[in-house]
Amino acid sequence: MASFGVIGSKGAMGEALKRVIEASGHTYAGGIDKGGDPAALADACDALIDFSAPGALAANLHAAVGAGVPIVIGTTGLEQSHHDAIDEAARATAVLQTGNTSLGVTLLAHLVREAAERLADDWDIEIVEMHHRRKVDAPSGTAILLGKAAAKGRGIDLADNRESGRDGQTGARARGAIGFAALRGGTVAGEHSVILAGEQERLTLSHSAENREIFARGAVKAAEWLLAREAGRYTMEEVLGL
Amino acid sequence: MASFGVIGSKGAMGEALKRVIEASGHTYAGGIDKGGDPAALADACDALIDFSAPGALAANLHAAVGAGVPIVIGTTGLEQSHHDAIDEAARATAVLQTGNTSLGVTLLAHLVREAAERLADDWDIEIVEMHHRRKVDAPSGTAILLGKAAAKGRGIDLADNRESGRDGQTGARARGAIGFAALRGGTVAGEHSVILAGEQERLTLSHSAENREIFARGAVKAAEWLLAREAGRYTMEEVLGL
Amino acid sequence: MASFGVIGSKGAMGEALKRVIEASGHTYAGGIDKGGDPAALADACDALIDFSAPGALAANLHAAVGAGVPIVIGTTGLEQSHHDAIDEAARATAVLQTGNTSLGVTLLAHLVREAAERLADDWDIEIVEMHHRRKVDAPSGTAILLGKAAAKGRGIDLADNRESGRDGQTGARARGAIGFAALRGGTVAGEHSVILAGEQERLTLSHSAENREIFARGAVKAAEWLLAREAGRYTMEEVLGL
Amino acid sequence: MASFGVIGSKGAMGEALKRVIEASGHTYAGGIDKGGDPAALADACDALIDFSAPGALAANLHAAVGAGVPIVIGTTGLEQSHHDAIDEAARATAVLQTGNTSLGVTLLAHLVREAAERLADDWDIEIVEMHHRRKVDAPSGTAILLGKAAAKGRGIDLADNRESGRDGQTGARARGAIGFAALRGGTVAGEHSVILAGEQERLTLSHSAENREIFARGAVKAAEWLLAREAGRYTMEEVLGL
Repeated sequence: MASFGVIGSKGAMGEALKRVIEASGHTYAGGIDKGGDPAALADACDALIDFSAPGALAANLHAAVGAGVPIVIGTTGLEQSHHDAIDEAARATAVLQTGNTSLGVTLLAHLVREAAERLADDWDIEIVEMHHRRKVDAPSGTAILLGKAAAKGRGIDLADNRESGRDGQTGARARGAIGFAALRGGTVAGEHSVILAGEQERLTLSHSAENREIFARGAVKAAEWLLAREAGRYTMEEVLGL
Repeated sequence: MASFGVIGSKGAMGEALKRVIEASGHTYAGGIDKGGDPAALADACDALIDFSAPGALAANLHAAVGAGVPIVIGTTGLEQSHHDAIDEAARATAVLQTGNTSLGVTLLAHLVREAAERLADDWDIEIVEMHHRRKVDAPSGTAILLGKAAAKGRGIDLADNRESGRDGQTGARARGAIGFAALRGGTVAGEHSVILAGEQERLTLSHSAENREIFARGAVKAAEWLLAREAGRYTMEEVLGL
Repeated sequence: MASFGVIGSKGAMGEALKRVIEASGHTYAGGIDKGGDPAALADACDALIDFSAPGALAANLHAAVGAGVPIVIGTTGLEQSHHDAIDEAARATAVLQTGNTSLGVTLLAHLVREAAERLADDWDIEIVEMHHRRKVDAPSGTAILLGKAAAKGRGIDLADNRESGRDGQTGARARGAIGFAALRGGTVAGEHSVILAGEQERLTLSHSAENREIFARGAVKAAEWLLAREAGRYTMEEVLGL
Repeated sequence: MASFGVIGSKGAMGEALKRVIEASGHTYAGGIDKGGDPAALADACDALIDFSAPGALAANLHAAVGAGVPIVIGTTGLEQSHHDAIDEAARATAVLQTGNTSLGVTLLAHLVREAAERLADDWDIEIVEMHHRRKVDAPSGTAILLGKAAAKGRGIDLADNRESGRDGQTGARARGAIGFAALRGGTVAGEHSVILAGEQERLTLSHSAENREIFARGAVKAAEWLLAREAGRYTMEEVLGL
């Protein structure tokens, strides 16, 4: 059993992390938020879990390296400079950054890549997701992650082949396009389906989250897995052995 | 058993109508296309089924009235002037015009209206449809028909509450909005789902067509039903007794 | 605002009821369990909500009648003698008994009955449900409730037309049968789909619960609605105005 | 382009094979049925496709070997003696035998095996399928094929872990069980879903066939692929490069 510190400890995700850490028999070493001291938290735990903001990333990485503890980064909205900082920190400690900490979504992305690789582009790829009514952007980050997995499997670039938000006179579907559609409503935690539609048959690969606790559970699983790693930058795929 | 004449007899729908008419024990009185004579066809049959073009509607209605036979109109793209002409013809003969001749879709629209009527607007309504890769517009006419049924049940106007083609920074969902999303791929004949998403529960009302023959079958059923009607304008709902 | 007493206050449902009562601005008058005194609880509240056991029903009804307060009964496993006791109590106070307190499921059952009524028996009816891995019986009570709604719409008796647990050499489907299938796994709170499968088209009417709180919410809504009723036996359908 | 002979040429599958062979630019070398001469057919074509009966298998293999042409075997109901005969023939010519010739189902089975391999047995596996009302057995052969893929991924034996046809007091789900459920109705060509249900999240991997032509198309694709192979026994997975 280990002790984990949470950066971004208030709000739904931070609370879920605390619950999951305690329920899994680990120790909750404490949590900080904006204005808190990540270095002190790093000194007091075996690994950090960071679901805060891009602006806090540099200090959080510095704290992890300073204390010699691994860090899981689930913060979204990262840009190239943040990724550069992560690469730099990964020379000194174990770092895992991911856009989605769910094991199920990680596996789904892997299966999508494999399916897209095996099927020719006369199988059309569509990605549809549903989230609660308060979500302010579309498509979801996870839908994009799945679209990238499909594009990688097919050996194309998502940006050049993306079709989003169909409405009006769209014309026929472009061969090789990867389509996105976003549904919003109620309190849906998150559902994603990747449809591969061929001649008179269809494959559909889906993930459904009952609530956001699965992301906390996956993050804790990733932190456990990182404990035994050397310095380096890791992915959720590796946690699943993919 | 009766004899039916088809206007718009070439192409997928015309051929399906011929097959269904013959398979159901009726007589196929013949079919015409652009340049054909609807009056001669009307004289030779017990009812007309018209899946042609808006420009041919006036002559087709004239033929039906002249021969005193009922007419089913499945032509799409009608404008107000066409509806006025239908009303006029309906004083002299039985006319049924509809945007969707499927019995299943007709019933679905009825159930959607009822559900929307019973649930308050803290249940969000989303409509998602999937069609084959060659379809050139979005959302489908049937999706719009379902959206109108939902709006009617809720006592609002669809045009004022429609959210289509979400992409990018959309902001949170507007209360009372009716959302649309369109998937395209493969050879899918037509699938529609209306989702009513409330607090932690969801109703989904769906229709799936295996192929386009169901539209021919519904049109023939409508024509059978019209045989016994007096002059007037009828709907698919009435064929189902709704 | 009113004050509600809960019979069967421990366990998941009792705790959810307490949360929902307090979140909706009402007063939680207290809860009792086996060995508690329903008469004292009835005297201290405006309405009772009973999710306990069949063996406790007689005393609970007696308490409601004695205090002159309405009672919502969500207890399952009732037999004819229990229904007789409910009818008796309903002469003196307002009683609502139901196998499912969810508003969504109540509406779904209504739509299923309507669909089954409108479609002939060349549309096959199948009901499939999924629940968490700990559920010990199949099909679920809600699936049976939906099957009864379908049977009622079609004017047949469910017991004579039920096909459950297909496995092995089943023979072709009997015309008019209502089929049931049960999936078990994970932590699924409850999903039900009623499929009406016709010639080359299908209607699917589904309900999905994210968690069991919806049953508590529906029970509280039913209790609120009962406050204004005279003595009599009521149903969830009436709460929705169906 | 090549020329293909069909054994079992009457009925839905034989007719679909003829259509697909001709539509794909190949030559239909002819078809035989019970009483026909497979040796003469084998001499007249580049490859045989056999969807006949187990009793005809020995003669069909003999014909393929005699003429030195590859053979695709989609006949169902094979027993060990038939598999032994196939192994024997595969020493002399290229033979591909499969329980399902659909490319989509073949890929699905591969993805299911991979998912089952990566996830521990706290993810419950359920397989649900729907077929038309005339199907006389349950679960479908394809559902069994998917169940075997899941069992293989998990390193267990399907026969020891199969739960089918739940009905009544089933008790809680056994850890590691693979559950099956069968829906029947309408004209559904074939739908299969494999659900992996974990703690608060679910993966669903599905295949939907619009009609049975996909099986003919996959069989022709397999026959094309076999043309370039040496003697040996092959699988559909190899056709997809899996």
